[in-house]
Amino acid sequence: MKLDHILHGGDYNPEQWLDRPDILEKDITYMKEAGINTVTLGVFSWAVLEPSEGEYNFQWLEDIINRLYENGISTILATPSGARPKWMADKYPEVLRVRQDRQRNLFGGRHNHCYTSPVYREKVAMIDEHLAKRFANHPAILMWHISNEFGGDCHCPLCQEAFRQWLKDKYETIDRLNQCWCTTFWSHIYQSFDQIESPSLVGESAVHGLNLDWKRFVSEKTAEFVRHEIAALRQGGAKQPTTVNLMYDFEGLNYDKLAECVDVISWDSYPVWHKGADIVPALDNGLQHDYMRSLKNQPYLLMESCPSGTNWHGISKLKRPGLLTAASLQAIAHGSDSVLYFQIRQSRGSSEKFHGAVIDHYGGDDTRVFREVKYIGESLKKLSEVAGSEVCAKAAIIYDTENRWAMEDSQGPRNDGLHYHENLMKMYTALKRQGINVDIISESKSLEKYSLVLAPMLYMFRENMEERIEAYVRKGGCFVLGHWSGITDEWDRCYLGGTPYGLMDVFGLRRSETDALYEYEHNSLIPEGGSMFQNEYSCSTICDLLQVKDAQVLMKYGKEFYAGIPAVTKKLYGQGQAYYIGTDAQQEFYDVLCEKLVHELGIERAVSGDIPKDVEVCTRSLGQTEYVFVQNYRNSDMDIRGMELNGELLYGKSKETLHAYETIVLKQKK
Amino acid sequence: MKLDHILHGGDYNPEQWLDRPDILEKDITYMKEAGINTVTLGVFSWAVLEPSEGEYNFQWLEDIINRLYENGISTILATPSGARPKWMADKYPEVLRVRQDRQRNLFGGRHNHCYTSPVYREKVAMIDEHLAKRFANHPAILMWHISNEFGGDCHCPLCQEAFRQWLKDKYETIDRLNQCWCTTFWSHIYQSFDQIESPSLVGESAVHGLNLDWKRFVSEKTAEFVRHEIAALRQGGAKQPTTVNLMYDFEGLNYDKLAECVDVISWDSYPVWHKGADIVPALDNGLQHDYMRSLKNQPYLLMESCPSGTNWHGISKLKRPGLLTAASLQAIAHGSDSVLYFQIRQSRGSSEKFHGAVIDHYGGDDTRVFREVKYIGESLKKLSEVAGSEVCAKAAIIYDTENRWAMEDSQGPRNDGLHYHENLMKMYTALKRQGINVDIISESKSLEKYSLVLAPMLYMFRENMEERIEAYVRKGGCFVLGHWSGITDEWDRCYLGGTPYGLMDVFGLRRSETDALYEYEHNSLIPEGGSMFQNEYSCSTICDLLQVKDAQVLMKYGKEFYAGIPAVTKKLYGQGQAYYIGTDAQQEFYDVLCEKLVHELGIERAVSGDIPKDVEVCTRSLGQTEYVFVQNYRNSDMDIRGMELNGELLYGKSKETLHAYETIVLKQKK
Amino acid sequence: MKLDHILHGGDYNPEQWLDRPDILEKDITYMKEAGINTVTLGVFSWAVLEPSEGEYNFQWLEDIINRLYENGISTILATPSGARPKWMADKYPEVLRVRQDRQRNLFGGRHNHCYTSPVYREKVAMIDEHLAKRFANHPAILMWHISNEFGGDCHCPLCQEAFRQWLKDKYETIDRLNQCWCTTFWSHIYQSFDQIESPSLVGESAVHGLNLDWKRFVSEKTAEFVRHEIAALRQGGAKQPTTVNLMYDFEGLNYDKLAECVDVISWDSYPVWHKGADIVPALDNGLQHDYMRSLKNQPYLLMESCPSGTNWHGISKLKRPGLLTAASLQAIAHGSDSVLYFQIRQSRGSSEKFHGAVIDHYGGDDTRVFREVKYIGESLKKLSEVAGSEVCAKAAIIYDTENRWAMEDSQGPRNDGLHYHENLMKMYTALKRQGINVDIISESKSLEKYSLVLAPMLYMFRENMEERIEAYVRKGGCFVLGHWSGITDEWDRCYLGGTPYGLMDVFGLRRSETDALYEYEHNSLIPEGGSMFQNEYSCSTICDLLQVKDAQVLMKYGKEFYAGIPAVTKKLYGQGQAYYIGTDAQQEFYDVLCEKLVHELGIERAVSGDIPKDVEVCTRSLGQTEYVFVQNYRNSDMDIRGMELNGELLYGKSKETLHAYETIVLKQKK
Repeated sequence: MKLDHILHGGDYNPEQWLDRPDILEKDITYMKEAGINTVTLGVFSWAVLEPSEGEYNFQWLEDIINRLYENGISTILATPSGARPKWMADKYPEVLRVRQDRQRNLFGGRHNHCYTSPVYREKVAMIDEHLAKRFANHPAILMWHISNEFGGDCHCPLCQEAFRQWLKDKYETIDRLNQCWCTTFWSHIYQSFDQIESPSLVGESAVHGLNLDWKRFVSEKTAEFVRHEIAALRQGGAKQPTTVNLMYDFEGLNYDKLAECVDVISWDSYPVWHKGADIVPALDNGLQHDYMRSLKNQPYLLMESCPSGTNWHGISKLKRPGLLTAASLQAIAHGSDSVLYFQIRQSRGSSEKFHGAVIDHYGGDDTRVFREVKYIGESLKKLSEVAGSEVCAKAAIIYDTENRWAMEDSQGPRNDGLHYHENLMKMYTALKRQGINVDIISESKSLEKYSLVLAPMLYMFRENMEERIEAYVRKGGCFVLGHWSGITDEWDRCYLGGTPYGLMDVFGLRRSETDALYEYEHNSLIPEGGSMFQNEYSCSTICDLLQVKDAQVLMKYGKEFYAGIPAVTKKLYGQGQAYYIGTDAQQEFYDVLCEKLVHELGIERAVSGDIPKDVEVCTRSLGQTEYVFVQNYRNSDMDIRGMELNGELLYGKSKETLHAYETIVLKQKK
Repeated sequence: MKLDHILHGGDYNPEQWLDRPDILEKDITYMKEAGINTVTLGVFSWAVLEPSEGEYNFQWLEDIINRLYENGISTILATPSGARPKWMADKYPEVLRVRQDRQRNLFGGRHNHCYTSPVYREKVAMIDEHLAKRFANHPAILMWHISNEFGGDCHCPLCQEAFRQWLKDKYETIDRLNQCWCTTFWSHIYQSFDQIESPSLVGESAVHGLNLDWKRFVSEKTAEFVRHEIAALRQGGAKQPTTVNLMYDFEGLNYDKLAECVDVISWDSYPVWHKGADIVPALDNGLQHDYMRSLKNQPYLLMESCPSGTNWHGISKLKRPGLLTAASLQAIAHGSDSVLYFQIRQSRGSSEKFHGAVIDHYGGDDTRVFREVKYIGESLKKLSEVAGSEVCAKAAIIYDTENRWAMEDSQGPRNDGLHYHENLMKMYTALKRQGINVDIISESKSLEKYSLVLAPMLYMFRENMEERIEAYVRKGGCFVLGHWSGITDEWDRCYLGGTPYGLMDVFGLRRSETDALYEYEHNSLIPEGGSMFQNEYSCSTICDLLQVKDAQVLMKYGKEFYAGIPAVTKKLYGQGQAYYIGTDAQQEFYDVLCEKLVHELGIERAVSGDIPKDVEVCTRSLGQTEYVFVQNYRNSDMDIRGMELNGELLYGKSKETLHAYETIVLKQKK
Repeated sequence: MKLDHILHGGDYNPEQWLDRPDILEKDITYMKEAGINTVTLGVFSWAVLEPSEGEYNFQWLEDIINRLYENGISTILATPSGARPKWMADKYPEVLRVRQDRQRNLFGGRHNHCYTSPVYREKVAMIDEHLAKRFANHPAILMWHISNEFGGDCHCPLCQEAFRQWLKDKYETIDRLNQCWCTTFWSHIYQSFDQIESPSLVGESAVHGLNLDWKRFVSEKTAEFVRHEIAALRQGGAKQPTTVNLMYDFEGLNYDKLAECVDVISWDSYPVWHKGADIVPALDNGLQHDYMRSLKNQPYLLMESCPSGTNWHGISKLKRPGLLTAASLQAIAHGSDSVLYFQIRQSRGSSEKFHGAVIDHYGGDDTRVFREVKYIGESLKKLSEVAGSEVCAKAAIIYDTENRWAMEDSQGPRNDGLHYHENLMKMYTALKRQGINVDIISESKSLEKYSLVLAPMLYMFRENMEERIEAYVRKGGCFVLGHWSGITDEWDRCYLGGTPYGLMDVFGLRRSETDALYEYEHNSLIPEGGSMFQNEYSCSTICDLLQVKDAQVLMKYGKEFYAGIPAVTKKLYGQGQAYYIGTDAQQEFYDVLCEKLVHELGIERAVSGDIPKDVEVCTRSLGQTEYVFVQNYRNSDMDIRGMELNGELLYGKSKETLHAYETIVLKQKK
């Protein structure tokens, strides 16, 4: 999908207002006023689209699509499988999920279908195909939005049977499965695949191989369900691109599996702003943007975002003036070709009635929120040429969902919290403070194109990770490996013979022991003479004790019985460099490390001077043109002359001062 | 029921001591010594009254009633339906409740019957009627106490069916129900009433209309059960008044529905004393007293209170000397015609064995607690003439259980806590610091008789609330509306077109947005020139941003992006005044507001001078006689000369000094 | 069992490595290097021992046992009943436990068998007997280890029926049961034993007599299961001693019942070190050692301990150099004849893969942990002569599991925490600071042999406790009774007529009331003139208000309304002394009390001078020889000349200085 403009709009539920044609008409007027060019229709509309079994009612939808299209507004059309009608649950209980404790859910909520159920698959295929037949050739239809925010698992007998078959296909013999899952422990050996049951808190919950394979099965089964829906659309004649909307920091599914099924990635972003310095959620959100973009390494869509307070947050804070614009433009800066909201008109009732919307219950366009949405619409028009441009990153961080599953499911070394996300954020923050783009990639992705790769807590190696890291470094790459890495294989079996597995030569060391620290504890990192570090730093959480063979020791521990034992090392290996950071250091350590590496590796920065702490810099490229986004996340003016910005101002007014939450976009030739 | 003396006594369980006639005799001696004139018998006695199906065993009860009566002690006789015998649960499992997850309870605990079950209703009616036949004409029987502390819900098939019928009667068509419940959201549309299931955490929990109607159904079904019991008593010939004992701050039922069924309100009071300043629980308890009294606007009963440590509190603190007397007289001050304890003799075993009692396991009358109970008995005799007098309040606060259900069930704006109770307490405290009586009324009650009405967080309007507020102000009333008010209708559907719904003209403003604050955050209120306020106050939790049309702005916000936006307003409307308080201000703000309004509206105060902070003042009236209760909740002496007290001392010794926890009662002509 | 050397070794699971004979061979080499002479085999090996029903596969086990024995390593052979094979759960679901909510567990985890199930008992007996037949005469077999860490309960129909029969045997008539359980409360009277159901959170959970008897039934049923296993072993010809491994501070079972079944006590010790001063967990662990030893009052075994970080702790801290040695020698000091680890070789997978082990995943002997294990092996050889020696204690503390059940199940006086363990630890710490040995005994044990007995919070008296205390004091014993004591009988029924029941004459007082304090509250203890105390101390948690008749008042309360009321008393009674401590005082109070009592009673101390705070002193005796263990739990050197140590150094180098975590052992004649 190649867009020549930026999508602006969001979820719209006219089926809630069919008895108020006046409101539907007013909505269109408002949308045009706000520069809205796209809506998402049909999410959760099944009960209206098929009010009783086999009785399809699409006319209202066609009328709306037409009316919107006449007014210059395109439609992303959703399949309705995210929630099902009551009649279906009553007639076919198998469509409802069974929980891990083996109780079948009653009807209610959403996102609770069994993805294995043949009945549900049949019903979904039928309505999807009918929708495609009716709308595939409609010029308003921009793309297809498959269901909504997939997640969760089902433990029904159909899923149990499918899981057993999946395992049989994977392992062929039960002996092989027993070996991989280490079932000899606690006498959990299986004699046949028929004996296997999904993990449960009232049954088996501590066989990590079983837990991992169950999560893999759920991810693949969900992806199969997505492909099933897409096939039905294609069967109905749909030719438009497809997407699924993904979620923030969601570890329930391996998103790589969903990314393979669809043409375009999209996601739903709901940061918690105004709780301390806003640069913190900005960077956290930025990492998610980069993760989503890296899934397919192409422009993606911001599918949902909240124009005002988010009602399911603990505290629904209003967004300060300018923040919504900043968050919207951050999406563009990171590679999104859209700014879409949930939702255009606030619902009158039910659980999301206080979720922020472009048009609220008051119903006027004379609101602070509406005015800012309109301003964003104008901004996006000014940035039209950015649509379709790419994000090039020379640095990457490995974040792998399966690694997280394994590490967090294991017992030890720190059941009170591994602080994986925090450690990841420290590395990401350090790179972003250099003003460079960063890809966030899984272990499945190639490392070849990067000058610098960082891997925090790469506990589980899969897909020959160790060989690929070795080759990457040997051929000239710079690899930074964090603590608690290279411990287990893809079944969470510990490697024997020393860790980081397969890389002891590359890094010139062995992890001899690993200590865990209480929340109130710290150790210190003391620089060695001749090291790239001059200062002491504190570290916490987890400390690997390193037994160095032929690496350069950069820092040693300063306290505890392991004072003097190496903590941070560097080794030149082949054409490249291998760094090992044996602990969870304070932010400034990573800042210095990344500054030096970016400089030394000659990774090009978008700005040449110093970047203030509350500023984020991103770039997008189109051929030889580079768009530099500079955003101020401080709620006050900021002098940015120190950044030595080049290029012309495509958006914004000054290269000298950024107002509170202001963004400027510069255009320059590379 | 018109009493000529104050009831003193409490729950008594002689069935636990039938094998110890010596103890039963001693109890009577002790009761007489302590001035006890009333006991409650029969609560939870079913297994002794009907040891096997159809075999009634009432003789022991008659013997006790007689023996007590011979000694001047009357009986409040309870129906035994609060707990059932094991044989009944075994033979008729339908009498046991089904939980929201659809599991039927096993036998055990108490208060867990199905209120719909025909079998349970039949069994209850039979024993109630038998009890009435035996005791209706006994002169000792003062009143009937229906069951015990009603609460909880049942999700059994019988209740499901009854709920569907209740909905059918209410809505007539399923379309009407769908519209009221906004079921289009997430495809939850029903096609027929037969499809409806009660709310469940394993099913539907977020359709607010369903949740609200379920709670209404439960309240009405419980009330129906109460009426069923009363009818059985009347059938058996009982002519005495009836009561149910209600609970502190209980939101499981709409108590208005229970209040309609019975002749007299009674409640069970268990404050947590001695955790910081005692005036805090005293006022909190005072509000509950006022709420209970206002249910029927007539004298009520303190049915249970604890003579010593309350064993189900987290920390069972002993009551300091004088505190039990203070708490007992507080009940009288607020309109109770009784001081009743749970319990007279401590049980030897089971879960309440360490609950404070008049006679403890030691069994003597030479205890600190017994001596204080005896002192209370003497005090109540001195106050006999107060029995039957009324409490007249010119100020009221609207506290509505259904409003609370709706507001707390909704998501947003502050899922981490709306602080409704705290905000309510601030308004109540401010009024009580003026020494005036306060009614606590639901939205169903008339406003006409009050000079001043305050409504904290009146989120949901029902029963034409907006019209009744408008009329009240137009005709000369003073109405103070708190923040987050007038948002939804009785199905929790948001009002369209601006809020506070129907009152934007009356208050001269519109709530444009609402911000929520973290616990650590505060905003400030800055007084406008010409306002009744001179000082700045802090505010927190929730801030409405007001768009003022023609109100007088009294205070504006001092911080955040909405600094300078109106927060507190006043408008003269018709003959009256309409105040809007857009945020949760600090206590002192409400103190100043109430002081000025009480003064301006000419609401008569029982004392003319300043009331010290740790003192509570209440009045009761009998014709032209006014009884003024002045209570010191500080654990030290207090100079009270600043209050300028009039009238003669009916109780107590000095108008100049109050000792720790001391009460005085003055008698004066109005 | 009389050993002539100390066992050194631990759990070993060769069945996890049958495909790696190289590793099994290497393990033996390493064990010999580390001075390991004993392994525990067969825990959780059922699925390998009986891979399908009736097919026994013991050859691998015999090979290992032989190979180890050839290398001087004996075997403790476990029965495999701690976890069952999948085929058994599939074919006989009754072997799986039913939870209190009446849901049957799925297969998984461990320790979840029904101890009543005839099928499970039959299957266990068969494999146990087969194991005995094969190995009973093998010279390598040192003893039999029955199952693993018994605990938990089962609520299946078979257990319900067995519980009813157990109650019928105990009470004979249902009236007697009703009386003991106080079932009249809340109408819970039973008409027949058939009506009784086990406690449940979805049924009855607050009839304390039922709860207590259920726990007693579970303890006895578990003991019966142990005897059943032992009988099968004996049936198979086994003549070696038996043991069960017990757990730290475990209150699920009355360990007295298990102790009766086996020949030797053993337990699994996993203290949390390095979280503040290490003397704290050292003393806490020391108390458990003393508790385990006192169960049979003979040498016992340390069956499991962790050589490095414990992976199921919240924070898996590494042990500082020397700490493992200190903890291992502490076991010997308290009367253990073994130092055994869990585990010898770390498992590759599943939930304990990061649990510390002698040989870790790296697999070498060149690790810090291996070197320390080897050092311990050498140390134990030096201490060989200590094996079989006894621990003589003249002081005892009563800690009773049934008392704890009752006290913690009751509501009041402090549901937020009774701090029983903390109070127990204060008394224990005070005694240990005197350098004397302490027995920890249940209420079933005789008091006669002790000069001093302390009883913290002896809430429930059973087995004529009051008579035995009276006799003990009368005959010259010194008894110190803590607060909240003598309140209920063995059914948790409150004693009438005053408490401490049966001892008001002995102590010369009555507990009139009991106050509970918030966590932030304190009261103070003020010494009376002529008392043994000179200083004020603070106290907290719970305060008994004492009404003294003829005791000497040692201290009074300093605050609250009970300032001036006696808190600590002493009475000379018969030939002995009776102290009552009415509150939870600060540590220093108990220190002073115990110092004075130890001195006054002439209890012999192993050292004559002052013992530094971070030091623990223990003694073992063999005839006229006394071994004095002195341990430094500080992570730095310590001058110990103040202790005036006698005897020759059997272990260690200096009587003047102890290094960090160092132990010395002195040998002297008594």
